[in-house]
Amino acid sequence: MSAGKIIVYGGRGALGAAIVKHFKANNWWVGSIDLAANEEADANVTVSKDANWSTQAQTVMTGLESALGSNKVDAIINVAGGWAGGNASNKDFLKNCELMWAQSVWSSTISAQAAATFLKDGGLLALPGAQPALQGTAGMMGYGMAKAAIHQLTKSLGCDNNGLPSGATAVAILPITLDTPMNRKWMANSDFSKWTTLEFVAQLFEKWTKGVERPASGSLVQLVTNDNKTELVIE
Amino acid sequence: MSAGKIIVYGGRGALGAAIVKHFKANNWWVGSIDLAANEEADANVTVSKDANWSTQAQTVMTGLESALGSNKVDAIINVAGGWAGGNASNKDFLKNCELMWAQSVWSSTISAQAAATFLKDGGLLALPGAQPALQGTAGMMGYGMAKAAIHQLTKSLGCDNNGLPSGATAVAILPITLDTPMNRKWMANSDFSKWTTLEFVAQLFEKWTKGVERPASGSLVQLVTNDNKTELVIE
Repeated sequence: MSAGKIIVYGGRGALGAAIVKHFKANNWWVGSIDLAANEEADANVTVSKDANWSTQAQTVMTGLESALGSNKVDAIINVAGGWAGGNASNKDFLKNCELMWAQSVWSSTISAQAAATFLKDGGLLALPGAQPALQGTAGMMGYGMAKAAIHQLTKSLGCDNNGLPSGATAVAILPITLDTPMNRKWMANSDFSKWTTLEFVAQLFEKWTKGVERPASGSLVQLVTNDNKTELVIE
Repeated sequence: MSAGKIIVYGGRGALGAAIVKHFKANNWWVGSIDLAANEEADANVTVSKDANWSTQAQTVMTGLESALGSNKVDAIINVAGGWAGGNASNKDFLKNCELMWAQSVWSSTISAQAAATFLKDGGLLALPGAQPALQGTAGMMGYGMAKAAIHQLTKSLGCDNNGLPSGATAVAILPITLDTPMNRKWMANSDFSKWTTLEFVAQLFEKWTKGVERPASGSLVQLVTNDNKTELVIE
């Protein structure tokens, strides 16, 4: 018998794949939502990146219904997203705003909608924030706006009458830099001892899914790593 | 000779029309951007609500170029936007998120882009925030996310290397409730002495445009009205 069921939105990304692997290794049933299937997952819902917001939502809702039947899940963990830079005079400013919005915010609102239907009472909904977006981010304006929207959505989901199942917890994790192969490639001269490992995040999500040291609903949880040790700053 | 030139984005809305009227009465040249023309304005750029983000941006940039020629403006004031309610289980949740985003955030990013090109050095860019979105807004999740994104964009535009002309100031106003005919209609039993008048906001913008008591760039300016008197809370 499995430990329980979770959904990872973005299960093919670097962090998402690490989460799928970690939960699978610990005997969970794992569903993945992404642009392509994660073969390690027990079920996959694939969305087209060319589909619009509501079409992606329909694909996800229909896919989860067919994968889950009448079962509910213990957690929906969204780690979908990407990164794009640029300020207001960048020629790709609007294009990048649009891309950041589609990757992070569409997936977060669809995750919230899916949680309203498929999450157990007392379940966990985790959304992808970013620590830098707590302040201005002139060099990555579209990215910052999308992440700030996710932070505010998280706070809304922490209020009463949020539409989630009874007793559910919504949190956002706010990493500074994750230790991914892509970040190693593009920021090769960085101090990696300040980067947060994917395994740390995966373990954290499993702990919270089991109800261990789970933050209050609506919390923004900064992941602050120094000397290869990550501390949580919870607001 | 006119006092100077300003652009009002959303110049046909209740607040936008009040701003156009106030600036015109004080001898400014006023351009309006909206879904329909404001006949009081000196120039109009009309965008189609069915056009996507980049098409609306192109229409605005081309329209301003033809209205302004080589002239620059003293201020670009965006007051476009609307309101929609609903939490994560609302059947129109995503539709409302999308609408709020298109109305407030598209217009704000396009205003920022337009400011990079058409604003004078030391000019003013004003964006439409909302005081309630400083916290969670469970009853209006899409609205809160869009406004939070605008707040964060304002902070980014207050940082160095923001892409705006030298010395330009970006601020957001964060009203609680504006005293508009529509709000009077839908919230007829409210305490109107706590609502902020459109004329107060129009006067505030003229003062800031002239450089009088202008807040630091990146400021979020809450408009807090009690006993028919509005105070500014600047963060």
